Formats: sequence, C-alpha cells, structure tokens
Amino acid sequence: MKLGVCYYPEQWPEQMWDDDARRMKSMGISLVRIAEFAWSRIEPAPGQLVWDWLDRAIETLHRHGLQVVMCTPTATPPKWLVDRDPGMLAVDQHGRARAFGSRRHYCFSHRGYRAEAVRISELVAQRYGEHPAVAAWQTDNEYGCHDTIVSYSEAAREGFRAWLERRYGDIGTLNTQWGTVFWSQEYNGFDQIDPPIGTVTEANPAHRLDYRRFASDEVVAFNRLQTDLLRRRSPGRPVSHNFMGFFTEFNHYDVARDLDIATWDSYPLGFTQNFFLAPAEKARWARIGHPDIAAFHHDLYRGMCNGRWWVMEQQPGPVNWAQWNPAPAAGVVRLWSWQAFAHGAEVVSYFRWRQAPFAQEQMHAGLNRCDNTLDIGGEEATQVAREVRELARHVGGQRVVPSTRVALVFDYEAQWMAQITPHGADFNYLELAFEVYSQLRQLGLDVDIVGPHAAVADYALLVLPSQMHVGEQLAQRLRTFAGAIVMGPRTASKTEGFSLADGAAAALLALVAGVRVLQVESLPPGVSDPVHGLPQPACAGRWREWLELNGAVAEARFEDGRCAVARNGLCRYVGAWLDAAGWRAVLAAAATSAGIETVDLPADVRISRLDGLVFAFNFSQREVGWKPAQASLRVLGDETLGPLQMSIWKLSDAVAGH
Amino acid sequence: MKLGVCYYPEQWPEQMWDDDARRMKSMGISLVRIAEFAWSRIEPAPGQLVWDWLDRAIETLHRHGLQVVMCTPTATPPKWLVDRDPGMLAVDQHGRARAFGSRRHYCFSHRGYRAEAVRISELVAQRYGEHPAVAAWQTDNEYGCHDTIVSYSEAAREGFRAWLERRYGDIGTLNTQWGTVFWSQEYNGFDQIDPPIGTVTEANPAHRLDYRRFASDEVVAFNRLQTDLLRRRSPGRPVSHNFMGFFTEFNHYDVARDLDIATWDSYPLGFTQNFFLAPAEKARWARIGHPDIAAFHHDLYRGMCNGRWWVMEQQPGPVNWAQWNPAPAAGVVRLWSWQAFAHGAEVVSYFRWRQAPFAQEQMHAGLNRCDNTLDIGGEEATQVAREVRELARHVGGQRVVPSTRVALVFDYEAQWMAQITPHGADFNYLELAFEVYSQLRQLGLDVDIVGPHAAVADYALLVLPSQMHVGEQLAQRLRTFAGAIVMGPRTASKTEGFSLADGAAAALLALVAGVRVLQVESLPPGVSDPVHGLPQPACAGRWREWLELNGAVAEARFEDGRCAVARNGLCRYVGAWLDAAGWRAVLAAAATSAGIETVDLPADVRISRLDGLVFAFNFSQREVGWKPAQASLRVLGDETLGPLQMSIWKLSDAVAGH
Amino acid sequence: MKLGVCYYPEQWPEQMWDDDARRMKSMGISLVRIAEFAWSRIEPAPGQLVWDWLDRAIETLHRHGLQVVMCTPTATPPKWLVDRDPGMLAVDQHGRARAFGSRRHYCFSHRGYRAEAVRISELVAQRYGEHPAVAAWQTDNEYGCHDTIVSYSEAAREGFRAWLERRYGDIGTLNTQWGTVFWSQEYNGFDQIDPPIGTVTEANPAHRLDYRRFASDEVVAFNRLQTDLLRRRSPGRPVSHNFMGFFTEFNHYDVARDLDIATWDSYPLGFTQNFFLAPAEKARWARIGHPDIAAFHHDLYRGMCNGRWWVMEQQPGPVNWAQWNPAPAAGVVRLWSWQAFAHGAEVVSYFRWRQAPFAQEQMHAGLNRCDNTLDIGGEEATQVAREVRELARHVGGQRVVPSTRVALVFDYEAQWMAQITPHGADFNYLELAFEVYSQLRQLGLDVDIVGPHAAVADYALLVLPSQMHVGEQLAQRLRTFAGAIVMGPRTASKTEGFSLADGAAAALLALVAGVRVLQVESLPPGVSDPVHGLPQPACAGRWREWLELNGAVAEARFEDGRCAVARNGLCRYVGAWLDAAGWRAVLAAAATSAGIETVDLPADVRISRLDGLVFAFNFSQREVGWKPAQASLRVLGDETLGPLQMSIWKLSDAVAGH
Repeated sequence: MKLGVCYYPEQWPEQMWDDDARRMKSMGISLVRIAEFAWSRIEPAPGQLVWDWLDRAIETLHRHGLQVVMCTPTATPPKWLVDRDPGMLAVDQHGRARAFGSRRHYCFSHRGYRAEAVRISELVAQRYGEHPAVAAWQTDNEYGCHDTIVSYSEAAREGFRAWLERRYGDIGTLNTQWGTVFWSQEYNGFDQIDPPIGTVTEANPAHRLDYRRFASDEVVAFNRLQTDLLRRRSPGRPVSHNFMGFFTEFNHYDVARDLDIATWDSYPLGFTQNFFLAPAEKARWARIGHPDIAAFHHDLYRGMCNGRWWVMEQQPGPVNWAQWNPAPAAGVVRLWSWQAFAHGAEVVSYFRWRQAPFAQEQMHAGLNRCDNTLDIGGEEATQVAREVRELARHVGGQRVVPSTRVALVFDYEAQWMAQITPHGADFNYLELAFEVYSQLRQLGLDVDIVGPHAAVADYALLVLPSQMHVGEQLAQRLRTFAGAIVMGPRTASKTEGFSLADGAAAALLALVAGVRVLQVESLPPGVSDPVHGLPQPACAGRWREWLELNGAVAEARFEDGRCAVARNGLCRYVGAWLDAAGWRAVLAAAATSAGIETVDLPADVRISRLDGLVFAFNFSQREVGWKPAQASLRVLGDETLGPLQMSIWKLSDAVAGH
Repeated sequence: MKLGVCYYPEQWPEQMWDDDARRMKSMGISLVRIAEFAWSRIEPAPGQLVWDWLDRAIETLHRHGLQVVMCTPTATPPKWLVDRDPGMLAVDQHGRARAFGSRRHYCFSHRGYRAEAVRISELVAQRYGEHPAVAAWQTDNEYGCHDTIVSYSEAAREGFRAWLERRYGDIGTLNTQWGTVFWSQEYNGFDQIDPPIGTVTEANPAHRLDYRRFASDEVVAFNRLQTDLLRRRSPGRPVSHNFMGFFTEFNHYDVARDLDIATWDSYPLGFTQNFFLAPAEKARWARIGHPDIAAFHHDLYRGMCNGRWWVMEQQPGPVNWAQWNPAPAAGVVRLWSWQAFAHGAEVVSYFRWRQAPFAQEQMHAGLNRCDNTLDIGGEEATQVAREVRELARHVGGQRVVPSTRVALVFDYEAQWMAQITPHGADFNYLELAFEVYSQLRQLGLDVDIVGPHAAVADYALLVLPSQMHVGEQLAQRLRTFAGAIVMGPRTASKTEGFSLADGAAAALLALVAGVRVLQVESLPPGVSDPVHGLPQPACAGRWREWLELNGAVAEARFEDGRCAVARNGLCRYVGAWLDAAGWRAVLAAAATSAGIETVDLPADVRISRLDGLVFAFNFSQREVGWKPAQASLRVLGDETLGPLQMSIWKLSDAVAGH
Repeated sequence: MKLGVCYYPEQWPEQMWDDDARRMKSMGISLVRIAEFAWSRIEPAPGQLVWDWLDRAIETLHRHGLQVVMCTPTATPPKWLVDRDPGMLAVDQHGRARAFGSRRHYCFSHRGYRAEAVRISELVAQRYGEHPAVAAWQTDNEYGCHDTIVSYSEAAREGFRAWLERRYGDIGTLNTQWGTVFWSQEYNGFDQIDPPIGTVTEANPAHRLDYRRFASDEVVAFNRLQTDLLRRRSPGRPVSHNFMGFFTEFNHYDVARDLDIATWDSYPLGFTQNFFLAPAEKARWARIGHPDIAAFHHDLYRGMCNGRWWVMEQQPGPVNWAQWNPAPAAGVVRLWSWQAFAHGAEVVSYFRWRQAPFAQEQMHAGLNRCDNTLDIGGEEATQVAREVRELARHVGGQRVVPSTRVALVFDYEAQWMAQITPHGADFNYLELAFEVYSQLRQLGLDVDIVGPHAAVADYALLVLPSQMHVGEQLAQRLRTFAGAIVMGPRTASKTEGFSLADGAAAALLALVAGVRVLQVESLPPGVSDPVHGLPQPACAGRWREWLELNGAVAEARFEDGRCAVARNGLCRYVGAWLDAAGWRAVLAAAATSAGIETVDLPADVRISRLDGLVFAFNFSQREVGWKPAQASLRVLGDETLGPLQMSIWKLSDAVAGH
C-alpha cells in the first residue's frame, strides 16, 4: 500500500522542483510518474536531444527518496515529426486525417511511426533504464483515449489485408467465413478488401469484427515493441501501462500479457457522468461516483498480471473532461483510495501533483492548486498516507491478493460483437456485465473479473453475463465445471467467425444449461415482461428469449408461461435482460447453491475481504450501523459507518480465508 | 390467394435444395422468388458466366411444381465491377462516395452502370425468359432502401443539368421559376448549376424540389431499361418490382406505370419501430404492429397496376434492421397474411425460407431456423395455406379487387414539398396522410389510396390530407367532383414550380372550398388550440391557418372565434393539424354527407370488404364481440374475435356491393 | 421615432413600384432599405453594370418623399464571381468548402473577395453616394448569419498565422502563453500552426480562443474597408450595419466602433423558438416572444454608437427560419414596435414590404401578402404610425437616449471563453447574462448593456454576470467604483491568454469582493443545492464554487454552511448559478444598497422610462391594473393595461430624470 503522484516538472519553473519533492515525501508519497508527454522537451527538433532538465528533475526526486515511474513519451509525437510524415496521423471513419493539437493523433499501424516510437523510447530507456531512482516503467499513455484505437489510414488498410491473409490463408476461406455470398459481397483476393466503412447500410458483421480484432492486435504489437526494449534496457524494472476505465476498443488482456503490472486510471465522477447510468443515477452519484465503477475495474485489472496492479491515476477533485464535472463530496477522495487498497492495489497514485493553469486540462484539479496551496484532495491524500501507516502498525504492511470464490467472465470480443449486432439499440454488453457485477457486490461477494481464457476450475461460482461466443477451451471448462454457473442471454449464440452459433454451441447449451433457444427478440422502451417465480417481483426488458427446456427446469417464467430462468443442476440460464431485482435473485440463488454465503448489506454499503481483513465502505450520506459478523478487531475507522466513511476490521481466523 | 417465399439456393449446400422444394410445396407455397442478389455467383469475374448452379436450382423448384419469380441482380454489383469503374458509386450529401460492402451502392445516373445493369439483366432474361418455371419477374430490389435514391455524383450533376435544360429550355425561364433574383442566386447558364448541397443555409426550395424530381425520374429511367428488355426476352410474364414501406424518395406511381404487378415488402414490426409513432405507441404495438401500417400500403399499391399487387416479402418473425426487433405475438404472422388477402393481394410471399446464419441479416427470422427446424412464423404460414384452401371451398378461389367509395390522395411530390419547407419541424405529410387514413379505417371504411393524377369521379368521398400543389388536371376534377371532399391544411398552397400559390390556386380554393387563407403558422410542442363545434372535444397542434370564409360556413371554430373547419356544400377545408378525434369527426361527417355508412367498430378492430365477404381483424389482446350487421354466413374463424384473431363472413347480397 | 421598411424592387414588376411607394408613404413609412442582395442584378456578368432599374427604383421612392437606406450588396456574391475564384468560399470545420446557392458563402479572410467587395461597394457608393434620397448606408447584411464568421479556408490559415505573429512576435512567447509544453504541443514556428480543428480531443483552449479573436477581427477589417469608402463617397450619410440577435461569433462592439448607427434585426418569435428557453417557456411565449429578448438587444445596441440605434428589421408576422414559426398574437407587432421606441430607437423598420412568393423566404410574412393585400402585421404597423403622430402631439417628436443607472457588462470574449471551456455542458454565458438582465427588468429597472471597455463610473449599479477575464482597465474601474457591484460566478477566473487567473486576478477578487475561490464544480441536471439566507427560497444548479471569505460576509449559504453569496461593502460575489428567485433577490438587494428604487411590477409587465415618459407593456393575455406611482398624465393607451396592450404616461418632474 503505497501512494504515488503524477508530476510534470517540465511544466513548472525549475526552482519549484525541490520544494515539490520535499512536500511529496513529507505527505507520504513514495512514487512519482513522469515524462509521458515530454517528447517535445526531450527532442525539441529532429535529433536534437535535451536531457539535462530531465536528468535534474529525476535527481531532485531521487535526492528526496522518491522513486520514479518513467514513461515512454509516445502518446504525443511532436509537431515537427507529424509534419515530416503526415501519413502517421490516424484517420477517422469519414476518411479524414486527425490533426495535431491534442494527443494520441498517431495511427498504430503506421510503420514509420512505430520506428519513431521505438527510437525515442530506446533513447529514454538507454538514458534512465538503470538509474537507481527508476522503479518502474509505463508505456505510452491510456491507449484508446478519445476513440483512437480504430484508424482507417492507408497504413491500416494495408495492415488489415495482411492480417486477413495471415488469418484465412486463402480468399475462399474468408468468403465462406464471412458469408460474402450474401448480397454478392464476394472477394476475388485480399487486395480487394477495404476497411468496413462508408457502406450504404451496415457492412458485413464478420468484416467489422475482424477489423476490430485487427485494430486491437495492432495495439498489442505496438506496445510489445516498447516492452521488449524496456526489458532489454532496464532489466528488473516492472513494465506497466495505464489502462483507462470503460475503454473497450482493444483487448486489455492481450496487452496485459506483455506487462508486469496492470495499472488503470480511476476517475469515478467522470465515469459516472459519461457512463450509461440513467440521469437520476448520474445526479444521485454526481459527487460520490457509483460505488461499483471503481471496484469493477479494480477487480478486472487485478487479474491481468497475476495480481499485480495499481491505480496509476486517481481522481483528486473535479476533472475537466466529463459533460459535467462535480467536486467529490468531502471524504470521497479518501474513500476511493481505500477502496483501491481494499481490492488489492499495490499503489494508488494521484493525478496530478498540481493543477496546471494552462492548456486543455486547466480545469482539472490536482493535489495542489495552481497557486501551490494544498487542495481539498491533497488534504485527503495526506490523511490516507497517515492511515496507511496506522494500518501497517496493526497488520503489517504486506499486501496480499484477495482470494475470491466468484468469477465473472468479461470478454472484449463479446463487447465488440454486441456493438456490431446489438439487435436492440440498448443491448450494451458492458452495461449488462456491470449490472451483474454490481448485484454480486451488493450481495457482499468478492469477485474476480476474468477473461474468457482464464482457468476457472477453482471458483465456486462462474458468471457469464452474455458470452456471445464460447470458444472450445471455455466450453470444455464449462462442461467440467464443478461449481455453479449463471449464463446470461445470448450466451453461446455466435461462432468465432461471427455467424449464428452452430451445432457445437447448441450442444453445449443443451448439455450444460439444458436449454435450446428457439427465438430471440429485443424490446423497445416501454415493453417489459413480468417474470414470476423469483423471491422478488422482477421484469425483463430490452431482450427476451424463447427457451425450450431440454433437461432444465424453469425457475422463473414469463406471464405466457414460457421459461425465463432455466436451471440444469447448478447451471442457470437467464433468457432475458432482467432488471436489478431479477439479477439479484438469480445470483443469490446461484451463490447459495454453490455454498457461498451472501451478506445482507445496508443500501450503498460495500465490503471487501482482503488478507484477513474486512473493509466496509459507506457510500451514502447517512450514518449506517453495520459490522461484519465475524469481526474480531476494528483496526481503522469507527464502529458505526458515518456518511462516506469506511472502517476496517480483522476477521476471526475461521472466516479470514473464507 | 397464393403463398410464396423468398429463397437463396446459392446460400445453401446443393444437397438441401430438393428437400427445401419438397417442403415448400407440401406446406402450400406455390411461388419462389430467387436470384436478386446473385450477381457474384452468376458472374464471379468479368465475363465469366456460371449458370449451371442456377439452372439446377430452377429445375429443382420446377420439378416440385413450384413457380419461380426471377429477379435481375442489379441491386448488388460485385466488387470487381465497382473496382473497374468506381464512378458508379453513389455519392452522399457530403460528397463522399459510398463504399462497396453492403448493397445498393450504385448511382442511378451513371451511364456505365446502366449499361452493365442492362447487360447482366439481358443475360439472365435470355437464359430464363422462356423457362416454363418462370412465372414472373422482379426488377432489382427495393429501390430506395438505405436512402439511395438521391446521389450527388458527377454523373448525377451532369444528368441534373441536362434534365433542367430539357425542363426549362432556357436559363431565364429557370431563373424566373426558381426566383433566383432572391439573394442574387441568378444563373447565366445550366452548366453553372450544382446539386443543392453544401450551402450555408438551405438552398432554394425550387432547386431542391427539382433535384428530388430529377432523382426520382432517374429511378424510373433505370427501371424502364429493365422492363423493356424483360418484356422482349420473357414475353407473357408479368414484371414487378418490390417497393418498400414508407419509402418516399421516389415517385412509386411513376415506376409502377412500367410494371404489370406492384409488389411491396411488408414488415409491420420494423415499420412500427422506425416510424413516426410516439414512444408509447411504439411500445403498445411492438409485437403486433400498428394495424393500419400494412393496410395503408396494401391500399396504396393496389391502385398502382390496375389492382394487381402482391406482398413480395412478408415479415415472418423478428427482423434485424429496426432499432428494436421484437418477435410477433403468437398468431400475428397469420393475421398479417390474411390482412393482405383481405385488401386484395394476389400473393403473400414470406421473406425468407430459412434464416441465414451469416452476414448482415443473420438476426432476421425466416420460415425456418438456420438449423432447418420450422420456426414459429413457418407454423403460422402453414396454417394460412390451410385456411386459404378452406376459404376456397366456401367461396371459390377467385380474388376480386375491392370496389371502394373512398379515395385518399397520396402524392410523393407533396411529401417532398413538406420535407423541403415544413415550416414547422414536425409537419410531416406522410404522418398526416397516415393519420387521416387510420381514422378512415377506424370508421370501418374501405379506402383506395390514389395518386394526384388518378380519375376520381366514381368515388363518393375524396380526401386530400395536404395536397400542397393541385395541378390543373386535379383542379378540374375537384371543380366537378360530385361527392364529398375533405381538404387538409396547406392544400393548393404552392405552384408546380414551388412558389406560393398564385391566383389560380386561390380561385380554386374560393370556388371549391369557399375559403381564403390569410395567414398560416406552425406551432411548437406544447401549443395546442382547442377546436369547438365538433361532436367531440378536439384540438389543433403543429399547424394552424387563418381562414376567411368566402361562401363557406364554419363547422368548427378556434377559441378566438376564427374558423377551423369550413364547409362549402359537400367540401370541407380543415385549416389545422387536428388531433385524432378532430379528424375522425370531420371525416365521419363528410362520409355521412356523401351517403357512406360508417361502422361503430370496437377499438383495435378493423374490417375489410372484398368480393361479397367481410373480414374482421382483432388487433387487440382481448376478446371482442363484434360481427357485421349484414353477415349471412361465417366462413372462417369464430363468432367472437379472440385476441389477435380474425373471422370472415359472407355478406347478404344487399350490401355485398360494398 | 420613424418607421421604415425593407424593400426589394428587383423582385417585383416595375409597374408595381409607384403604388408601393405611394402606399408606404401613406401608411406613415419614411425610410426604405434597398439593394443589399442585388449584386446579380447590378452586375449580371463580370463588369457588365446595369444601373437603370435601380436608378428608377430610387427615383420612384424619392418622388414619393421616401428616404433610402442604401446597402452594399456584398452578402451575396453572384455565381459567376464564385466560379471565377472558388477559393473565396468559406470552409467549414470539416474542411469542406461551403457552396453557392444561398447567402454569406464568402470567407472574410480571402483577399480576392475583399477586393471584389470593395470594387462593387465603391461602384454603388459612387453612383448613389450623393443622391438626395439616400439618407444612410448599411454595410453588407447580418454578419455571422448561419454561422459564417469562422472559416477554415486556406486564406484563413494564412491570415491566422500572420495575426499570431503580429500578436506574439516570436514563437516562444506563443508557446508560453498557450502552455504548449502540455502534451508536447510546442511549435517551432508560426508556419506550423493550423486552425484548431480535427484534433483527436479538444484543441488547446488558448489556440481556440485566439482563432475566435482572429475571426472576429477579420469581420472588423472587412467591414472597415466598406465604411472607409462609404464615408469618402457619401459624405454626411451615417453608416450602419444590421446586427442579428443572439449572434455572438464576432465582437459587435469592435464592428460598431466603425459605424455611426448600430441597427439590429428583431425577430422575437424566431428567437424564442431557437433560443435556450425551456420547452414550456417556448410554448408559453410562442406567439408573444419572451418580453426581454428584444429589450436585451435594444439595450445592447443603444450603447454601441453613442445612443444612435435602429431596429433595421422588425418581424411583422410568422418568419420561416425557426424550428417552429407561430404567428404573432393580435397586437404583438404593435407592442414590439413601441417597445423599441420605449428603449430609444430612432427607427423601426419592418422586414419586409411584401411577402415574396418564391425562393427561401417565401414563408416569411411581410407587411403585405404576396397578393398585395395588407397583412395583419401591416395593419398593426399602420396603427403604430398613427400613434407615433399622436404621441408627438403630446410630447414633441424628439427622441432622447434614456439615462439609466444600471449597467450590465456583456462581453463577447466571455461568451467565447465559456463556449471553449464551459466545464459543464450547460454553462452558457449568454443565457446567464440574459437571465440576470431579465431579473433586472422584472425589478422595473432600466438597464444599459455595456462592453468591458465602457466607462462605468456614472452608474449606481454594475452587474458582471460571469466576466471570466477582467482586463486591467476594467479592474481599475472596479477597484474605484463608487456604486454597488454584483459579480457572477467565474468572474476574474481567467487571464487574457486564457489560462487560469493569476495573482493579479486573485488580488482583485480579494480586494473588491473579499473572497478567494477554492474550488469550482459544474453540476449535472438533477443536482441542485439549496441556498439559504435570501428573502426567498433559492437554489443553485449547473455551477457552484467554494468561497473563502477574506473580508466579505456571507449573505447566503449552502446547506453545508459554505458561502453562496458574499458581500464586501457594496460588492456582492455570487459563487453559483442561481435560479431566477436567487438572482432576483441578490439584484434587488444590490439595487437597494445603491439607492435605486425597484418597482413591484405585475407578472409579465415591463416598464421603460424615456425622456420624462414611462412606457408600460403588458406581455400577458390578461388585463392588468398597474400605473406608475408618479404618473401625471396618460398620453397613450388605456388606464388599465389590456392583454398585450401598452400605455404611456408623463412623469411628474420630480422623477422624470429616471
């Protein structure tokens, strides 16, 4: 449990650096991330390298005992580089090159830019790779920010054709897989294939899905060029990338495979405003953030690099980039920080040390105001540092990855598939996965979010919110899974090639879930089918299926008597987009059947168990009287949970492992 | 009354064909439409023609006694053709060429593509024109789908200039007609005129209207190239095109003039979702479809080819292309099929035989699922086939075009005019025409929808929802019309050249309606003027006029005492966008004055009279006790109308005439 | 108090002109604006000048004793000119050249077009500059209409680079001012800088603000070319331009500096529909217009040219260009006309004499219908002319600029700043300024709207709704201001370079307002913080600040006890976006503290004091019994104010000063 901060020495007079470092250290910060946007200062003109300022900045931090997270500056190629080869600019879906003047303007597929990115990264790594202050690396910055994964440049077109040729070998196979006989879309060769844009109506879904896969693979390849050279130039230092919440344009699991630490950037208020919550929910959580948004990502990134994960950027006050930018309620920055630790974070690093008075993020708060007075978030971060030390006195400083019994499968390809063929305008896979996750959390359960390729045998409950395509490996694991399973609608409905599921998928559903799907429909706003048979009244909207029971029994039925939730032994198949009450009932029943105890939590309270501790968070503005049944010792916080407060208890040994 | 189906042999293994044909025949299907998207299989490379598979497919159908509706494959030019001459691609309003990868990507004005379309159609017609299985032809597929009528290509620009020169002869005449003196828009020659896009604010309305007329004429010309060659190559076989519901970008009357049979593609649930209904109505009719949507089109296309019309594509289950895609409620596919027959359809042909597992329409249901089991819609189609045979036993199989006494004038140019100068954002001519039509249907009236050039003297009631321009021929017919007339707002308010109406139009209104329009206004949401004097309380929103009565009397007045509905003998002029109750009252009064009896139907029940029969349809989910007063014998269905059920009675001779 | 009209002789047969002029004169019109769109008639082909028709038109008007407001025709360059140099077309933010076919298609930066505009204006001025009928000039027409100020053409790019070089001198200064070190946005030279479009996320705010300033300056330069030549060619005639309501893309103060008379085009119903009012307000005021919309502009333009201002275009009936176009309620055209005179207008000129039957504005009413009968608006204008004569008998015809004690600072740069960094999606500076203005008017106060450079020492109350940047001159005036001040949120929060405010601004706020702003936040819909301590219950939404009181006292507090409204002597700082009740309470208290008496007006009544008179306007549909306390004589209208009526009283001498 360490604190960090993001710092931009190049943006401040050098005479401030020493005091900055001193104050960082004194408030309990130990890690400082720097230089991810500094290319134009490192290389102000082609080949003209200016290291002295950066040398001194690192020395200053080092002198104060701070460790540095060093970055490659590839997210912001400077103007002179762009002007030298404008072909490196990403191209939008209308065929327009994106312009210089903000960030992330490069195309991942451009070979020339890849070479430049390697060159500058190599230079940075060469200079600082073995510097004693450098404790870790970050590649680039927030891949995918501002919708920058998918580019339609000439480089991307060429890359896509080569990618397709590698994947399919011959054009006949592609034609078959894509079903191009439909509407005379057949190709005579790979060199006839363009990116799937500009068509009169939607392009072929397999074509679109492959383009998404290709674009994701390009990110992986781009990132790997950097991780390879960093490992070579800076041995022993872990390499990370800072993922961004709710970005799903590329497969984070695939990028993470090349990293040592998964980090992510947590902006609960910004996400609450820009997320798919209903307006009333956005208002309700405006200054607190929906409690499960950060948790969802904590549990997602925890699994990506064998449990090693950080929050690289933690919101410290109002941000500037959401539609509306409220200020965190008093205490909430502290709450978020502890929530991250409770989910197992090694580091919580605030963005940023001091608010910049200029440029695009001038309205983004920092720990300090731009007049260098400590801002409200800075005060709370100071408190967190103090409390971390206090907790360490009680339990030792060691962090242990929580061991959970519930796994939720989250799959980036499922998201792309749902985006390409939602069938109903509001069928949003990410939203459904989040809703299911939130219900699990409200039941007091700790959750691992895992990819479709994860080994899952050790879990007691496995939840697949809407796993459109079930690959052979996952199918095999489902067939032999000993615990309880909950499958959401559309599970196993598509092949890998993005056709409707074939016999194998039907056989899987028949065997594991005991059902056959006869018909599906999406439902417009205002159409909602009551579901009977669950402990609470529930409804289905947005999506409904007609199930034929082949071995399963109906646990809940629609008013017309057809099955809504089918159970086949320990496996439940939910043939609908249920409301919150419906999901909660199904998940609670599944947990119970798997021998997992759920907890009757007060509204807006969440708990996390970690290493023999239980953390309880009160995300409401009212006082709440709750404590864990098996608590043996309160080690932080009050006995009752005040508004926006948290407490930590030790668990008696019997339940600590659970 | 025959059933048909749309079939794509090229999309399935050849070994399935024989069984497919056998099952079609056995379930009562007699017509099979094929090949409208098969160009890339007929000609996989330039000049390389592959007929054998299609020969065998047709033979297979023929062998089982099925008749074939053969198509020209011109809606989907293959990739090699597009690559050879990319100029054939349609161009959107931003000047971007539309891309290959879906369908309908060609520009109607491109001479090179016209030649190619003639070449491939001629080849198909040459090979199959006299095949004994081929019973009819379809040209292309759904002209206008995906907003593809209006193109801004170089070919279209050249075509437009030539079209203008033919229309106006000299540039001075054009300048006068368009009023280009306004804003210094004057042209010195036709070669200065561009398509009306990209302007700083709206382009000249006459310019825009002429571009719409030109674009519509290009479709007519394109289609006529095919009808000409088909008549030459396949004598005796009727030629059709499948129009699509609620497409108004081209003049369907003009295209139909070159056809033998008008067919249309009926997707009641898709139209309900994508149509201008209020959200609550979309929810209410989500699984049934608004009862009058299909009927409106049945009554529209019935008039286009002297009463010969089919449903070429009948929705058999959920479609894939609407914002939301609900499943038809049980029994509704059957209801739709019978509704078509009740309005006089010769053929109801389902789209499609079997759901395709791949490509863009993989989520579109067929009569069979893609695993080849009979889907719910297939079961209902089978029932329809059985019932058709049953009805034939009672009344003979012969179909007779209904003879109606009410005509509603629907004019594509009026739609374009309202789109170009709506004056209020929600003044939608199509919506108003539909609302008026729906009220007529709720009054139990059979309706012919006719174009502005139709002979109308034999009708007893003529309704013009908002006939912006009244041409001299129609004006003459109105002046001498013996029955009742209802004119909606804005009638006769524009000249053919799309200026404000001149003296002739004012004289017409004065003579026929006895009114003069002093002022018009559009009303924002929330402004609604009560209308007094009708049997029911009513309101006007969206649009209101200030009428001066020159011979007419006020049948209804606004609260300020001004006239809302004027009556001059048998002619009523409605100077407002009335609500449903208002229109119903005015139409009922007009019908009564014309000696037409209206029927007091239960809510959501509709009736059709055809050939001595009366069909009653219950579009509600509750049982309804209604039967025609003059029914002499029930020949199909129950005495009370169950939910989503229909019954057919014979009429006593006295009323069978209508 | 004179009436005028806009007239287009070129659009009508010459035989109508004489009668038109005769009727104008007889209904009381004395000024006729002509020729602003007549370029293609004056010069139908390059260099071919056709003056005879215009000579005769002017002669006809002159013969009837009418005066002419002559225009330069530069808003509509003809097609032959555009075709000769298409580079003159403005370019939109997607890089697409705007097309010929409406108006305002030129780019202000294009040197070739500037030369052409000078050439044609010089020719017109040469011919008519000393004509005895020509009483005044108008340059061009409605700069900015249809979003035409900001162009991204090649000419604009070059102009911008030169503008930047003039402003910053060297690139290092620009880099510092813009803070380009952020995200490696640094430039090596001015020739690397492009317009701020097409970036992946928002471009640098300083870059964007400078582009807006540059675009505004280009309008000023363009306009000055014309004012210079008109003064030379037509000595003694005042030069005006007709500004348009709610256009804020350029700095009207800067353009007005080169004019003799500021005129504006008043379309209260169109503005009500297109403005930011809530839907219920749009419905409520649909046929009346929000009472303060016209008044706001009257008070704005009155200040621009030392009190000389006209309404150049007064809405006479329904317009054609709003989303919805209702008709003015009976009497409202008269009400608007008198409202303009009550605010000090020299001239109210109606647009237009007669409705055109053709082209884009055929649905725009005139004083006459296109069949040449007098329209409803024409009748009301006739009444106004009669009443003006009546009033003149009572008080003499002389018009005096009102002397007000309240000034509201309205700043175009503040609007651009708020648009560039709104921080919350609904932080609209113009809307806030309008809301504050409206509350002042509802308190019965006369208001001067002034620019940030205005001398303000003579006012008793100074209101700055949200003056983001306070320049040194204004700061100095605030520091020494003797009256009361009300500052809205965000005041003094930015530097001129568009960074967060520096120490100077903080010092100003500390000194004048006694506050320091610790934190700001924007609030999404549904979040509203109650404010306690004002006479009425009030709330803050959209925006809130955390104030530290450094000398000020809290006049109102949020529920958490923090200060919402701070008072420091006579200066109030409002740290929130208050609701109407909140603003009203704060403004009333400030007025009282400044010794200004507020008036307890009935709802929807407004008053204006002018030259010893008080005008009262009833904008409601009900009768209202109100009269000024010090009224000595009623000179026009009734004792009680009927629906949509107005009355004028003489004031007793004691209060006539104001």
